[in-house]
Amino acid sequence: MLTARIYITLKKGVLDPQGVTIQEALQNLGYQNVRETRVGKLIEIQLNSVSREEAEQQVHKMCQELLANPVIEQYEFTLS
Amino acid sequence: MLTARIYITLKKGVLDPQGVTIQEALQNLGYQNVRETRVGKLIEIQLNSVSREEAEQQVHKMCQELLANPVIEQYEFTLS
Repeated sequence: MLTARIYITLKKGVLDPQGVTIQEALQNLGYQNVRETRVGKLIEIQLNSVSREEAEQQVHKMCQELLANPVIEQYEFTLS
Repeated sequence: MLTARIYITLKKGVLDPQGVTIQEALQNLGYQNVRETRVGKLIEIQLNSVSREEAEQQVHKMCQELLANPVIEQYEFTLS
């Protein structure tokens, strides 16, 4: 059993209103040193009965087919 | 300038309907070996003019005050 931890973030230059909201909320709470804030997704998937290489290929395909929007998002992942 | 990468995930035992939906969608796409799938948040924050120790304390406080819901979520973070 392998666990894939997939990190999906907005590409540079894509507007992130949720990040801006969090940044402003933190500044209003007194964290004046907070600068750019970006929000992404973290997806953890347990994969059954595959080799590490197969899992790596699979997760790339999953990201491209379903999990990430390649127009505005980028992804990276770890397997453990 | 330090970058905090904060990973917020649902605690074990907390129902994750978004994760279940992704798991079923992946299985319907043919990934029959996908098991438990959980979805979390990834928040990246740039912190200005703080030491590493101050930043660590700050991020803990931010998570407790605003970013995570301690009843159902847990968090971890890295600083770089």
